[in-house]
Amino acid sequence: MGTIRFIALSGTTDVTENLYVYEYLPDGKQVTEMIIVDCGVGFPESEMYGVDLVIPDFSYIRKNKHKLKGILITHGHEDHFGALPFLLKDVRAPVFATKLVAGFIEDKLADYGVDGVDIKVINPEKESLSLGVFKIKAFRVSHSVPDSVGFVIDTPQGKIFHVADYKFDWTPVDNRPFNISRAAILASEGVLMLASDSLGATTQGYTKSEREIEEQIERIASKAKGQIFFTTISSNISRMQQALNVAAKLGRKVAFVGRSIETKTKIAKNLGYLHYGSGLVVPAKRSKKLAKNKIMYIISGSYGQPGSALYRVAQDEHDFLRVYPGDMVVFSSDPAPPGSKANVDSLVDAFIEMDVEVHYYDLQEDLHVSGHGSQEDIKMLFALVKPKYLVPIGGTIRHMRAYRHLAEEMGLPAQSVFELMPGDRIEFKDKIAKYAGRINVENILVDGLGIGDVGSVVLRDRHKLAQDGIAIILLQLDKKGQRLLSPPEVISRGFVFEKRQKRLLLMAGQELARKLARKKNLNKQTVKNTAVDFLEKFFLDQTGRRPMILPVVIEV
Amino acid sequence: MGTIRFIALSGTTDVTENLYVYEYLPDGKQVTEMIIVDCGVGFPESEMYGVDLVIPDFSYIRKNKHKLKGILITHGHEDHFGALPFLLKDVRAPVFATKLVAGFIEDKLADYGVDGVDIKVINPEKESLSLGVFKIKAFRVSHSVPDSVGFVIDTPQGKIFHVADYKFDWTPVDNRPFNISRAAILASEGVLMLASDSLGATTQGYTKSEREIEEQIERIASKAKGQIFFTTISSNISRMQQALNVAAKLGRKVAFVGRSIETKTKIAKNLGYLHYGSGLVVPAKRSKKLAKNKIMYIISGSYGQPGSALYRVAQDEHDFLRVYPGDMVVFSSDPAPPGSKANVDSLVDAFIEMDVEVHYYDLQEDLHVSGHGSQEDIKMLFALVKPKYLVPIGGTIRHMRAYRHLAEEMGLPAQSVFELMPGDRIEFKDKIAKYAGRINVENILVDGLGIGDVGSVVLRDRHKLAQDGIAIILLQLDKKGQRLLSPPEVISRGFVFEKRQKRLLLMAGQELARKLARKKNLNKQTVKNTAVDFLEKFFLDQTGRRPMILPVVIEV
Repeated sequence: MGTIRFIALSGTTDVTENLYVYEYLPDGKQVTEMIIVDCGVGFPESEMYGVDLVIPDFSYIRKNKHKLKGILITHGHEDHFGALPFLLKDVRAPVFATKLVAGFIEDKLADYGVDGVDIKVINPEKESLSLGVFKIKAFRVSHSVPDSVGFVIDTPQGKIFHVADYKFDWTPVDNRPFNISRAAILASEGVLMLASDSLGATTQGYTKSEREIEEQIERIASKAKGQIFFTTISSNISRMQQALNVAAKLGRKVAFVGRSIETKTKIAKNLGYLHYGSGLVVPAKRSKKLAKNKIMYIISGSYGQPGSALYRVAQDEHDFLRVYPGDMVVFSSDPAPPGSKANVDSLVDAFIEMDVEVHYYDLQEDLHVSGHGSQEDIKMLFALVKPKYLVPIGGTIRHMRAYRHLAEEMGLPAQSVFELMPGDRIEFKDKIAKYAGRINVENILVDGLGIGDVGSVVLRDRHKLAQDGIAIILLQLDKKGQRLLSPPEVISRGFVFEKRQKRLLLMAGQELARKLARKKNLNKQTVKNTAVDFLEKFFLDQTGRRPMILPVVIEV
Repeated sequence: MGTIRFIALSGTTDVTENLYVYEYLPDGKQVTEMIIVDCGVGFPESEMYGVDLVIPDFSYIRKNKHKLKGILITHGHEDHFGALPFLLKDVRAPVFATKLVAGFIEDKLADYGVDGVDIKVINPEKESLSLGVFKIKAFRVSHSVPDSVGFVIDTPQGKIFHVADYKFDWTPVDNRPFNISRAAILASEGVLMLASDSLGATTQGYTKSEREIEEQIERIASKAKGQIFFTTISSNISRMQQALNVAAKLGRKVAFVGRSIETKTKIAKNLGYLHYGSGLVVPAKRSKKLAKNKIMYIISGSYGQPGSALYRVAQDEHDFLRVYPGDMVVFSSDPAPPGSKANVDSLVDAFIEMDVEVHYYDLQEDLHVSGHGSQEDIKMLFALVKPKYLVPIGGTIRHMRAYRHLAEEMGLPAQSVFELMPGDRIEFKDKIAKYAGRINVENILVDGLGIGDVGSVVLRDRHKLAQDGIAIILLQLDKKGQRLLSPPEVISRGFVFEKRQKRLLLMAGQELARKLARKKNLNKQTVKNTAVDFLEKFFLDQTGRRPMILPVVIEV
């Protein structure tokens, strides 16, 4: 029966950056076949200055790329498929996804200029895939983007349920609820391991149905007297469907605004995941001809992202949209990502100052529900699947620990729960799971065109620069005479306001010159060291700050 | 009757940095007397890199300091009294506060080396002050620090209720609830204006009583098998009283750890605001001799602040405290300030990884209640005071707007609510309020020893440096020959990892040299301009980044 190995290559401690590996080792030693579930990006933490994206470490997969049989994608969120272009640049394997997700993936790959990828559309209700020794079936789950699935991976050691982001929504907007009967039947012969979403493990109760939102949107939008700006995250096709339904009811036209929303709605409409009557949606630029109370904009920027369409409207910097007193802005989203709350708050403030009526998270008007199951959803899935082993995924260690407590309450022994750090492996042999060590992985930071070249040194420098700026000290050294040719010149950026603090910088240079004049045998290195030591202390005494000191010595 | 003027010098749009001015103009033109209510600090927003504190703009007060009759402080939170040292350096006036608050103020002034301040302790149940034309009475309110008051300022135009942070707590830990009867009697003859806390205006219901927390603490702490680390904000004397009560019940000793907690509890104990039996509290360093299940640490760092005592325990870097598997950490606080959630999360993660049981905000265990009244508290105060005019304070424009909606619901005309921006003034003449223009004020940033010298230029530079670092280009120009003496040298920090990207920086210098060689009549300025233009484009093309380019030209 060989050995099955599971690697949480990424995604168990950061919520995002999901990437899991399943391997088959017929002799228990050598991997012969491998599949991947999900391949997502992460978002930089606030202290990762200048970093655009974080992606998983693909080194291990690259090294074993000839063994890779396929990549399964659970749903259409960036943190589950967004890193595909980075992987597929040098690794080739077929990618399996449902229709809408495949549409999003094609668009993403085109964006990055990665072509020739074999994307296979799967039907979650029917198909059964064979990827080497792995037999795969899927079942529909509910989430905040349509066409999401869970996978059942049949291995020589037993069945594995891999259920990424999900909730139980019996009345989803697309009328295709979590296929609980298919999941139950697939689980009925016994399940070796469940890897499933832990993000809601600290939230009490059940997560509400998406359906409940529409009434709220209608109640609020029906009171609007001017333009309506409705915003939600661009992948939330169901939410946009509800906004479209409300607009149609209220006799308003709809215009999509913002690149991400325009792209995603176009894909969803073309593939049959977004439904609206002809004439309802108008091009944004033409909307200006309509009366103000006859238009609803579905606009990107629900996290208040600087540069987004809604941000530009709030700053009155949008190309063709203007907001007027009496207009309405509806945020149908929860500012959960780091930094998004402050961004949303500042947009809300700007709108209120313009006498715009704003509906946003803090007013608790039920304009958003989570896409993730809460404690009761989690227990329901656990009861349905009844796994022998549990691997919480898609959360942080806080969520894994909370999920472990739920599983223990339901009778699972603590040692049957694996809280895995990135790179951690477990092996199944004779249907028994054992921890099997860790592969060395690191977060790969993407900054501009550079992938992985920004590391701890560069980030440490950016921190220091951000905190107190930089003082550059220019020293011209007479090579032969071993003395300074002219008084040191100090240039600073981000340290003090140079125009007003000329005296301070001048004084720093002069005192340093005096200090150096007392030294014998000056050379490049002693000059540098003296300058750094002296100026660090001098500036700290004078200003209480610690700028980066960069001495530049020119030998003439 | 003259004119009374109210200035929201600071505190209406930022939650913190509270400072309000009341003025008397006998002839309607010239101010003759002035009082101040509160004088607090603000905390830097995340984009204010390197800034330690934000304080109100005192220019206007300094200019009128001879008219200042007194400073009233409502309660012992930094955002209401923390800026006193900065003001009292060059402005002198008596400061009025209740006993505990006066204790905190003395400590703060000593910290900053400001002495000779006349601090007058007031008894909120009895005293009546005369500060020039202003007659002042106080009444006790509930908040998350004991000894908080609201002020009634009797002016020639009528009574003004100034009620900063408060909630209605009928069972506070110190058994001294909001003195609603005194407030009612003081309000009974009619109130011209109410200035009151708006922070809870977006939160439904009533705020719960502090008393409810103690049972929760006991329930959780009684299950601990090892050491308990209990953390809350250092001014929350009531919360610490409850922790002390629980420790005594469970037969544990208590040790205070962390400078802010040690200082505040010492002041509170000495002044009779903290009660515990002799022998309950032991010096932290001696606690190590006790069995692990016989100690509870009350420790600072409830917002996960880097460098705080709890932070150092989590990093296993504390001088004398160690945490062990099976210990318990209890966060009795809500990570509301910007950035605090991420900081708390990272501490929680660290503790969970060490197999410590952590109780924190996300588990919703009712280990914290807000110190601010919610919508129903706000309505109750409003109904009690029945003011002619309303000025929401202590929130952002979002909270002011929400408060305005509540007041409108209760029958106040919209035009009787003044949503004031910093520096905005209103004037009362013939008992009618009118908007009276704005004084120019700005946020004063404190960075190290510098007060106000960090402004938009320095912050913009820090942003740019944080984002993509800096590239310094060194050019030696032959003054006579108008040519470069050597190839330009590029030094970078926070841009790329220099060790690995030597080639890129070398190439940048060489290509710039070629470009300059084609130019005629080089001088310092043309060399600088060419270098910046060329390198901005070169680095963007090569790396997708936009470091700050700093050309340094040395003429030889």
